[in-house]
Amino acid sequence: MPHPYGNNIKLDIRGGSHDPEISMTLSGLPAGIAVDTDVLQTFMARRAPGQNAWSTPRKEADQPHFKSGMIKGEDGLLYTDGSPIEAVIYNTNTRSQDYAFDVPRPGHADLAARLKYGEAVDLRGGGHFSGRLTALMCTAGGICLQHLATKGIRIGAHALCIGGVYDAPLHPTDNGFTDFDHLAQRDFPTLDYSSGERMKAVIAEARADGDSVGGLIECRVSGAPAGLGEHMFRSVESAISEAVWGIPAVKGISFGAGFDVANMRGSENNDHFYTNGSSIYTANNRAGGILGGMTYGEPILFTVAIKPTPSIAKEQKSISFSRMENTTLKIEGRHDPCIVPRAVPVVEAAAALAVTDLLLDL
Amino acid sequence: MPHPYGNNIKLDIRGGSHDPEISMTLSGLPAGIAVDTDVLQTFMARRAPGQNAWSTPRKEADQPHFKSGMIKGEDGLLYTDGSPIEAVIYNTNTRSQDYAFDVPRPGHADLAARLKYGEAVDLRGGGHFSGRLTALMCTAGGICLQHLATKGIRIGAHALCIGGVYDAPLHPTDNGFTDFDHLAQRDFPTLDYSSGERMKAVIAEARADGDSVGGLIECRVSGAPAGLGEHMFRSVESAISEAVWGIPAVKGISFGAGFDVANMRGSENNDHFYTNGSSIYTANNRAGGILGGMTYGEPILFTVAIKPTPSIAKEQKSISFSRMENTTLKIEGRHDPCIVPRAVPVVEAAAALAVTDLLLDL
Amino acid sequence: MPHPYGNNIKLDIRGGSHDPEISMTLSGLPAGIAVDTDVLQTFMARRAPGQNAWSTPRKEADQPHFKSGMIKGEDGLLYTDGSPIEAVIYNTNTRSQDYAFDVPRPGHADLAARLKYGEAVDLRGGGHFSGRLTALMCTAGGICLQHLATKGIRIGAHALCIGGVYDAPLHPTDNGFTDFDHLAQRDFPTLDYSSGERMKAVIAEARADGDSVGGLIECRVSGAPAGLGEHMFRSVESAISEAVWGIPAVKGISFGAGFDVANMRGSENNDHFYTNGSSIYTANNRAGGILGGMTYGEPILFTVAIKPTPSIAKEQKSISFSRMENTTLKIEGRHDPCIVPRAVPVVEAAAALAVTDLLLDL
Amino acid sequence: MPHPYGNNIKLDIRGGSHDPEISMTLSGLPAGIAVDTDVLQTFMARRAPGQNAWSTPRKEADQPHFKSGMIKGEDGLLYTDGSPIEAVIYNTNTRSQDYAFDVPRPGHADLAARLKYGEAVDLRGGGHFSGRLTALMCTAGGICLQHLATKGIRIGAHALCIGGVYDAPLHPTDNGFTDFDHLAQRDFPTLDYSSGERMKAVIAEARADGDSVGGLIECRVSGAPAGLGEHMFRSVESAISEAVWGIPAVKGISFGAGFDVANMRGSENNDHFYTNGSSIYTANNRAGGILGGMTYGEPILFTVAIKPTPSIAKEQKSISFSRMENTTLKIEGRHDPCIVPRAVPVVEAAAALAVTDLLLDL
Repeated sequence: MPHPYGNNIKLDIRGGSHDPEISMTLSGLPAGIAVDTDVLQTFMARRAPGQNAWSTPRKEADQPHFKSGMIKGEDGLLYTDGSPIEAVIYNTNTRSQDYAFDVPRPGHADLAARLKYGEAVDLRGGGHFSGRLTALMCTAGGICLQHLATKGIRIGAHALCIGGVYDAPLHPTDNGFTDFDHLAQRDFPTLDYSSGERMKAVIAEARADGDSVGGLIECRVSGAPAGLGEHMFRSVESAISEAVWGIPAVKGISFGAGFDVANMRGSENNDHFYTNGSSIYTANNRAGGILGGMTYGEPILFTVAIKPTPSIAKEQKSISFSRMENTTLKIEGRHDPCIVPRAVPVVEAAAALAVTDLLLDL
Repeated sequence: MPHPYGNNIKLDIRGGSHDPEISMTLSGLPAGIAVDTDVLQTFMARRAPGQNAWSTPRKEADQPHFKSGMIKGEDGLLYTDGSPIEAVIYNTNTRSQDYAFDVPRPGHADLAARLKYGEAVDLRGGGHFSGRLTALMCTAGGICLQHLATKGIRIGAHALCIGGVYDAPLHPTDNGFTDFDHLAQRDFPTLDYSSGERMKAVIAEARADGDSVGGLIECRVSGAPAGLGEHMFRSVESAISEAVWGIPAVKGISFGAGFDVANMRGSENNDHFYTNGSSIYTANNRAGGILGGMTYGEPILFTVAIKPTPSIAKEQKSISFSRMENTTLKIEGRHDPCIVPRAVPVVEAAAALAVTDLLLDL
Repeated sequence: MPHPYGNNIKLDIRGGSHDPEISMTLSGLPAGIAVDTDVLQTFMARRAPGQNAWSTPRKEADQPHFKSGMIKGEDGLLYTDGSPIEAVIYNTNTRSQDYAFDVPRPGHADLAARLKYGEAVDLRGGGHFSGRLTALMCTAGGICLQHLATKGIRIGAHALCIGGVYDAPLHPTDNGFTDFDHLAQRDFPTLDYSSGERMKAVIAEARADGDSVGGLIECRVSGAPAGLGEHMFRSVESAISEAVWGIPAVKGISFGAGFDVANMRGSENNDHFYTNGSSIYTANNRAGGILGGMTYGEPILFTVAIKPTPSIAKEQKSISFSRMENTTLKIEGRHDPCIVPRAVPVVEAAAALAVTDLLLDL
Repeated sequence: MPHPYGNNIKLDIRGGSHDPEISMTLSGLPAGIAVDTDVLQTFMARRAPGQNAWSTPRKEADQPHFKSGMIKGEDGLLYTDGSPIEAVIYNTNTRSQDYAFDVPRPGHADLAARLKYGEAVDLRGGGHFSGRLTALMCTAGGICLQHLATKGIRIGAHALCIGGVYDAPLHPTDNGFTDFDHLAQRDFPTLDYSSGERMKAVIAEARADGDSVGGLIECRVSGAPAGLGEHMFRSVESAISEAVWGIPAVKGISFGAGFDVANMRGSENNDHFYTNGSSIYTANNRAGGILGGMTYGEPILFTVAIKPTPSIAKEQKSISFSRMENTTLKIEGRHDPCIVPRAVPVVEAAAALAVTDLLLDL
């Protein structure tokens, strides 16, 4: 029983790698929101495969075709008309021979999906469980990002860590966009150039070994108002997490100081408040912009753990469904040795969906 | 706009520290489920304050009074009758002078709540945002735990880390309950006795300094069937997270290898599958029992980061709402220098709620 | 799997006739809404039993006790504080001997509930399925009515028909409150005095025969803005219906011309539009204020069919659960020979809940 | 903020008359359900326009193209694979000149949509508010009907009344399908042949006058188990109503004796129970199969009021949005003088969606 994302907006994603198309519906946005498709395409290109040396050579356009919910204005922009937005991405480059059928790939959804749905499930190319569906999270999130920008809210993420190499962190209390502008000009999503170069080297090394590496993505939402979210079961953390867990490779999410709190004292971790007489600030925003599930006006900061790509070239042990016996598997296709760079815009998209949904609570 | 927890069950929690009572409703459970109130009380006592040297001296019974939804059977057990279960805990020991009104406490929800709700909000003693409401999560979760046990599902958690001191980890592939039985006999929730003693020392030290410490809680769900959860927005991760984020002090959650994946290669992190001819297993369950958002029959494993108690005895910088100027705050009441031990059963309760909800999807 | 009412607000109702109390939670209202408990009590008194010759002699206070979510202001009013509102009504006058256990009462939920929940279900006095729970719909709806009044929205209903005797209809295009003020001064909810007298006679006649009568309630929402509701599955009709179906005796609901459309031509039924240059009106509002599921600025008009009270004094045929054989049943207690007058405020409450929920969509 | 239909299944419908396609997603059905597309097409053809003398000459294929969620089996049937089902109907015969832009059509959603969404809304041909979207309700409902049939549940509806001419009613306690089989062989959906002929005459007369007629549709769900639905806010009535209100022309819905209860006494309306020693029955099923919001094993019976087609050939009074002044409107296109016959399968589809959703609660 899949269900759409969101309480106020609804994002629903369908299709799989061997269907003629994958599609999404985004409803609940106000009428009259402007979408610049060039900006959207540029955003989606950051996720698309086949762009450079460190991602998979499989090239697909990842171009969304809007079927309803938007009308072209005289200025060439698309405008939401209040009805549900339907977008389709056509599957053009599926190579079914790349993928095993009978032998579930370690680290993929294959085994769980087969146990859940039985033989009826279509697992070719990952089927409905393919990471390719995150392209549509980017379509929806990219629309939300343009909407949020008009409200002074901007979201940026970077590769905080890949294979043990760390980038500099985002500024925790900066509600401006300086480092986001900086990131936007980089071909590799790090704040620090040399960190990015070392990450590329780690990725290249893993590829050479027929292996892959994981990493961390740090994301900041700047400009969000105080008062988003609710205590207990409608927290900002929960709204963002629900979207982020929609990204297949995520294994953890934390806010502010995150797991470091295990080694901290209260006097270190507490955010001291201060005021200039009109607004209230925190010294270090160690809470990541959220206390009691609610924002207090500082940026929202969270970090996501991305596992190493499970599709690796090395031979792996697995089982055969049909023969119910142990076997080995060698995945032949070409796969990203590290999906962290491509996952960066997906994390931004997830945050944009959550913040758009939370804003509509107000 | 608060909302209840769950898609199939619904848990709703109300009240605050200065109301005559706090209460919860749990609906959606089948009729005829037996609840042993002694077992429930024992479970809830693990969370209750004032039990020992390392928790707050404030003593409250934390006894749930059931107002509807259950009928006493001839065997003395309560049985759900299919209608919503209403439970109330009376507030008997509120000491409003313990808490500041005009000066938000660093690390607490006070500031965010005031910015969200304005002057109408009641923040005495934390109001509706008090951690005391987790007592009712334990009531609801404790009922679910008894229900799950009849289905062969058991949930246990322990203090994996407090103030930098680590316990031994739970066994990742054990669907039995050996270590849970072990934990149940301990007065401090660690697998390893000496780790517990060192954690107590760290806590005592923080208390002596007027400070507090944070930690990590690791939880395992054993015996859950394969096929729980859904791809994307109804994942097991999301269902558990949504409940866990309802615990005020949580700053992060991860599944399986969690944030360690940032330093791992795919060949290390991938779970190899093997079969004995009838069932399918993984070598190390590094995925924490979940792939593609769905369980595959191995235990679910997750870790939660708990921040140091924000209420510390040390003087802290804050602001005055009424005067809108900087000030200092000294919290006078008695507070836990570490809430990790008391949060352990709350994490179990959260997991029980999520698994109960997910099971009803099947 | 019961669930709360509302998308933005959440109303949840618990308890049964033999529990110590029945209770409700209403969450999602903004902080700072003022509630005059005298006005609320007057509203709830219109539903309460035992007030006069034509309702049941069973007297119960039906007084809501607020446990959380509201704080008393200096002006004596209660103010919502943004947290969930918990209200309790104590059961003080339960007479369990009034009701049969083993023999389901025709026209009641007894049989369906037993078939659904099995022997675990508590059916004494109707249990959780008792009409008494509508007292709490009135508590929640009464709060919403006071909130809506501050936004220029007022809701009124009357007994359009009882036992075949008809009252004059509400004015279909009046966004003012003249007839509501008129109704508020009447002890019997009809616009036309003589209709009310004839209805009383019909009710008295049914009571003398050990029987009961049904009727129709017409309700109008005046002052609601255009643009409430959505096409298809979030229509104003659906939002109102979902609340109205929560009233046990309802067998039908219609909007505007309702079932009369079966005998009408398009040229009769269509609402012609006209404008005074600034606003747009309809000639007759035959659509009941809703087209395409959305309001267009005219009053919302709907009619609800209320069945004759199923508890009648006459002997009725039924079955015995324990002996699984045919038997007869004579219901001994005292029951309303017509619940239409008491259901009038419940219908108003249902409409108030729906409109409050829909307004929060905007 | 549109939202999908269903708690367990989710039906979401997008698109409008001037988009390249309209589409739907149906998720939440179990994997492995077989769908015979010929049977589905036959079902959908009953709703499709242009089939005969009494419906609109506008011909459109109304053929659903499945994009994902189903795989063709070796037997030629489609099988659900557990992932969301995406179906598209292409718009091929849109004639935009048929419809007015600036002048809202009386009885249509035009005015309400414009007031809600402003100038951004696309109202050409009714836009997203077109009755054409019910074709996709039939796609989704038709799939559910095939699924329900395998569980012994069958749903049938007929034109109970058109323009004042009545058909014989469906048998109220028949859990078999005799009259459904009878209906399936008719080209006009009445049980009684002569009633159908008289209805056709009434429709022809209205058409000749440039006018239209409304009617009633009665629907029966046979074979549904006892115990569907819940007390209060998850009643069978609510679940069916929510789907039925998704059909644009509906103005009322009633269950069992419906609005007739206004003229009945309790002794007439109550369903007497009897047993044959193993099952429990009601004498007349006047409650329409539902008591306390729950089924008790008898057929579910409900009646829907369908308004006369608002698009009539006669000149009508309306207003001009651009000039904000009164004007007249003459709708030029060809329109059904009565949509009741075409709405019959849509009502069946709505019932099938609701019953499928309710079954998944069990």
